[in-house]
Amino acid sequence: MTTAKVDPLYVGLDVGGTNMKAGVVDDSGTPLSGVSLPTEAHRGQDFGLGRMCETIREAVAAAGVGMERISAIGVATPGSMDIPAGMILKSVNMPWVNVPVRRHVQETFGLPTAFQNDANAAAYGEFWAGAGRGARSMVLFTLGTGVGGGIIVAGDDGGLVIEGEHSHGGEIGHIKIEMTRPRSCGCGGSGCLEAYASATAVAKRAREALAEDGGRSALHGVLRSGNELTSRHVFDAAAVGDELAGRIVEETALYLAVGATSLMHVIDPDLIVFGGGMIAAGDGFLDRIRGHVRRLAFPVPAERTRIVYARLGGDAGFIGAAACGRRLVREKISRL
Amino acid sequence: MTTAKVDPLYVGLDVGGTNMKAGVVDDSGTPLSGVSLPTEAHRGQDFGLGRMCETIREAVAAAGVGMERISAIGVATPGSMDIPAGMILKSVNMPWVNVPVRRHVQETFGLPTAFQNDANAAAYGEFWAGAGRGARSMVLFTLGTGVGGGIIVAGDDGGLVIEGEHSHGGEIGHIKIEMTRPRSCGCGGSGCLEAYASATAVAKRAREALAEDGGRSALHGVLRSGNELTSRHVFDAAAVGDELAGRIVEETALYLAVGATSLMHVIDPDLIVFGGGMIAAGDGFLDRIRGHVRRLAFPVPAERTRIVYARLGGDAGFIGAAACGRRLVREKISRL
Repeated sequence: MTTAKVDPLYVGLDVGGTNMKAGVVDDSGTPLSGVSLPTEAHRGQDFGLGRMCETIREAVAAAGVGMERISAIGVATPGSMDIPAGMILKSVNMPWVNVPVRRHVQETFGLPTAFQNDANAAAYGEFWAGAGRGARSMVLFTLGTGVGGGIIVAGDDGGLVIEGEHSHGGEIGHIKIEMTRPRSCGCGGSGCLEAYASATAVAKRAREALAEDGGRSALHGVLRSGNELTSRHVFDAAAVGDELAGRIVEETALYLAVGATSLMHVIDPDLIVFGGGMIAAGDGFLDRIRGHVRRLAFPVPAERTRIVYARLGGDAGFIGAAACGRRLVREKISRL
Repeated sequence: MTTAKVDPLYVGLDVGGTNMKAGVVDDSGTPLSGVSLPTEAHRGQDFGLGRMCETIREAVAAAGVGMERISAIGVATPGSMDIPAGMILKSVNMPWVNVPVRRHVQETFGLPTAFQNDANAAAYGEFWAGAGRGARSMVLFTLGTGVGGGIIVAGDDGGLVIEGEHSHGGEIGHIKIEMTRPRSCGCGGSGCLEAYASATAVAKRAREALAEDGGRSALHGVLRSGNELTSRHVFDAAAVGDELAGRIVEETALYLAVGATSLMHVIDPDLIVFGGGMIAAGDGFLDRIRGHVRRLAFPVPAERTRIVYARLGGDAGFIGAAACGRRLVREKISRL
């Protein structure tokens, strides 16, 4: 048996409404494993807590190490939550109420356990080990069904996640960008960035434009085929010169640039990162966003703030959750 | 001569385009003096630097103490700046370029000297010794010629001012709240909160409404008298039931609530504070803002985030500057 000092390992778990994903992550942010199990939220929250622990165990086994090698665990979940209490309060996608996630995981494994909002965790993951590596501060916009996000500011010991006093920090899909003709948002409000620039909103805006279009756009073919029109169809059609699709994409870039500019004037980060499914749109889309930002933002941040795509894909959540666990342990050490 | 330990004192200086104000502040945030001298910016930046030191000396004299009692100095200025470098880069209201403010003050007095943006300093002053006393985090909106502001988040050692990576953090007057019919903003952009909700914008919107009004509003009398219509006239007329003025005030409350809601969804602070001249509008105006926020924001922050008026008035800037000096000294002590 060797007595050599070994680098600490962490497990991160990212719980979603459909699946949960966990992985072992080393001290430099590299994942050693990544496993996914169905959440089966309808089976109740006790089942859900058990499934979380099962996914963590499978991730450790898949990494080929024993649980005794793990220094800390981080768990990220969606939903309305109390981050300091480590609890999910409720969730739109999971019929769970007041779930003591952190306590359960901590007691099951007897390891320091961090709890975080899934969007914040994804931001912290990108900051630690992805597009934000080396940055002092960062704002992540995640473009999917909604517009999620997370904010990391420069703190005393590296980046500080803006959790907010009521666990509502970084809800940047719900900044208001329009008052005169505000679109209804999934959150129940209106005028939110998400109502304009999520993948869902892109498809919806395209359907509206098609209803008023003379039939020239190739996207009419998607509707006729009976398929559901998605943002992917819109970006693909724009890429081959479809005029209506091109207009929708251009407007989406503007909306995202408006959101990015507001965050640049509030947080003024090193770096703005766009992640989520919509980044399949490619570099041209990012360039459009950058162009609008240069015009909209104050000259100094407009010139200096880097705007890039995320790098960790669907792993950002569990890597960021692991980073939260790592931070917990490091803070304890630094306080000794 | 006594050898008893005496509480440390700090000097804060708040430089404005017209006047600069300084005061000695004790360790609990209470000002022992407050003096004001004209900036006379047109006399050049060397004169300006000399005037800063003169104002600091007068503040110390007015407090009835000697300079040897001062532990640190803080200086807050307007303009485009490099906060870490302690420099004003340029300023709209002062014909100064690349002014090494912190170095000059530090070398003149031989004391630890902090440098901060004036709006951030006002926020930090309110946080330390005013409306934010006891809060963990706070966003200040200062309603005057423009909409200024500052953001304090919960940090490792009390509040952390969001300075931003390019000294543009907390420019919350320049979040974008409208795209369809964006108003032009003094910053050169459009759609900014400031273009809707500053005192200047309130007067402008009232003049526009009067031009389309049938002559019933009492505000026509102000215009006929040859006086310049100000936001004060609008709030006063609204208070006695003038319909047009009432509509302008109500819309202003909505615009500010939209801005506050976006900040609640980004920062999610304990406390939102409104300061500046427009708070003379009184509690009824604050209640209107609160009412809109309750409707616009997510339920938890809508219910729990306190929304109040500032308490330090025009002293917030120098008290906050002093607090920045105090923080500098305390950080040094805590690192020993």
